[in-house]
Amino acid sequence: MQRLAMRWKRAGTRIVFVPSMGCLHDGHLSLVREARRRCGRSGKVVLSIYVNPTQFGPKEDFARYPRDLASDLRLCRRAGVDAVFAPPDLYVRDSGAAHSTYVVEDTLSQTMEGAARPAHFRGVATVVAKLFNLVLPDVAVFGAKDWQQAAIVRRMVRDLDFPLEVVVAPTFRESDGLAMSSRNRYLTGNLRPQAVALSQALTLARAAVRRKPVSAARLAARLKRFIEQQPAARVDYVAFFEPETLLPVRIARPGVQLAIAVFLGPTRLIDNGCL
Amino acid sequence: MQRLAMRWKRAGTRIVFVPSMGCLHDGHLSLVREARRRCGRSGKVVLSIYVNPTQFGPKEDFARYPRDLASDLRLCRRAGVDAVFAPPDLYVRDSGAAHSTYVVEDTLSQTMEGAARPAHFRGVATVVAKLFNLVLPDVAVFGAKDWQQAAIVRRMVRDLDFPLEVVVAPTFRESDGLAMSSRNRYLTGNLRPQAVALSQALTLARAAVRRKPVSAARLAARLKRFIEQQPAARVDYVAFFEPETLLPVRIARPGVQLAIAVFLGPTRLIDNGCL
Repeated sequence: MQRLAMRWKRAGTRIVFVPSMGCLHDGHLSLVREARRRCGRSGKVVLSIYVNPTQFGPKEDFARYPRDLASDLRLCRRAGVDAVFAPPDLYVRDSGAAHSTYVVEDTLSQTMEGAARPAHFRGVATVVAKLFNLVLPDVAVFGAKDWQQAAIVRRMVRDLDFPLEVVVAPTFRESDGLAMSSRNRYLTGNLRPQAVALSQALTLARAAVRRKPVSAARLAARLKRFIEQQPAARVDYVAFFEPETLLPVRIARPGVQLAIAVFLGPTRLIDNGCL
Repeated sequence: MQRLAMRWKRAGTRIVFVPSMGCLHDGHLSLVREARRRCGRSGKVVLSIYVNPTQFGPKEDFARYPRDLASDLRLCRRAGVDAVFAPPDLYVRDSGAAHSTYVVEDTLSQTMEGAARPAHFRGVATVVAKLFNLVLPDVAVFGAKDWQQAAIVRRMVRDLDFPLEVVVAPTFRESDGLAMSSRNRYLTGNLRPQAVALSQALTLARAAVRRKPVSAARLAARLKRFIEQQPAARVDYVAFFEPETLLPVRIARPGVQLAIAVFLGPTRLIDNGCL
C-alpha cells in the first residue's frame, strides 16, 4: 500500500482516504462518494478495511465484530473505489520486539466514549496514524456518526502536523432515522424497532431547545426517560457539549452538540447531532 | 517547511533530514555529511533547529540550553545544508485549544534516560513525529550518542509506519575522546578535563570484556569507581544492554551496548558504545 501510495504521490495524484472496519453499508458508501467529490476522476480513492484490535476493550465485540470481505470488495468495485487496503494485521512483525508505540490524545478523549471505553481512543489514534503513513492521503474522510472520534483525529492531525485535511461527512440514516452502523446487524427480533429511539431523542432535543434554551442536565434526564421507554434500552450517557472542544455545556441551545450512547440488549449504539 | 517539502516530493527530490536542537558542533556536521552521502547532489538536506520544550523536565536546562542561531546558519551554509527549519514554536496555535496529542513509546523508554527523565521520550517522540510530518524526509539521520533516543525513534518509525528510513551515525568525539555535545559548553574551568572519564570508561570496559565476559553488575561498579575518581563526577547510571531491544544483560561481553550518564558538577553528560 505504501509503495503504491508513494508512486501516486510522485505522479502528483491526489489520494483521498476512507478508513473503515469493513462490513460496508450505505453510510460508508456515502463517505466514498464524498471522497470521490474531493479528488475528482483523476485522483484515487483508497478505502481501508481493518478491524483494529487495539481499539476494542477486553470485554468488547472484537471477535464477533461482523466481517464480510467478499461483499465489501463487491461494493467497493461498484462504488468506484480505486484501491482497497485490507491488511490481515498491522501490529505483528515477522521478527523483533512487539509493537510499543502509541498515539495518545489526552483531552478530548477523557469524556463520553473515552470514559466508557478505556484505551479505545489510544487504539483509534494509533491505527489512524499508521494508516495515514501507509496510505499517504491528501484528504481523509470520517463519518460524523463517530463525532468524538472525528474530533480526536482532527486534533491529532493538527497536533502532529500530518500533511492532510480531515473531512467529516454527515451521518447517513435508515428511512426511520437510525444512524447506519455495522453494529446494526446485531439488532435482531424486536430490538431493531426500539433503536429508532436514539434519533427520535435528537429530534425531540432539537425541538425543545428551539423553543428556548434549557438546562442540559434536565434535558438529558428527559431524553433518558424517553429512550428508556423502550423495554430493552439502557442509556449509557447523554452529553451536551461544544462541537469542536467537546467541553460540556450547562445550557442546551441551538449550536450545541448532543451525543447519546445506549445499550439495546447487549448491543451498544451511539448517535449524535447538532441542536 | 511542509509546503516546500511537498513541492520537493512531487518533483521526485530525495529529502534527507537532520533534526537538531541547534548550537551546532562538529558532531552535527558529521550528521550533515552523512545526510549528503544519503541523497547525493540532487537531493536536499534539511536541518531543523528547535529546542523542544516538551522533552525537558521542569527542573532541567530548557531555559539556559545554549542557542546561537547566527552561528548555526553560518555553519549550515558552509556545510551545504539546503534548508534550515528553525520554527519559533511548534506547539502554540494562533487560536483554538492547546496541544493534546502525544506519541508514547512504552517499552524502550522505561530504562536509562527514560527512568532518569520522566516524560523526556514522550516529548522526543512527539516532536520527531511532528518534524517528520513537516519535513517529509526519505531518510532521517540521528547520532549514536543518544543511543536510546535513536532506538526509540527507530521503533516509532516501525510501529507507526512512517515512510522513511532511520540512519544512526557514529558518535563524533573530541581528540581526547569526549563525545561532542552542545552541553559540553557548560564544562568550564576544571570540569572539562574530568569529562574524559566517560569515554575512558568505555575503553576500559571494552578491554575488560575482550579478555573475558564478566558480570555486568561487577563491571558497572568498577566503572562507577573509575569515573568517580574525578572529584566533580557523580555517576547517574552505568547500563549494559542489548543494542536493539535495550534489554539489560547480566553478562558484559563483546557486542553488548554500554551506556553511561554522569553528573559533572551541575551538568549531566551521557556516552555509550558497543563493547
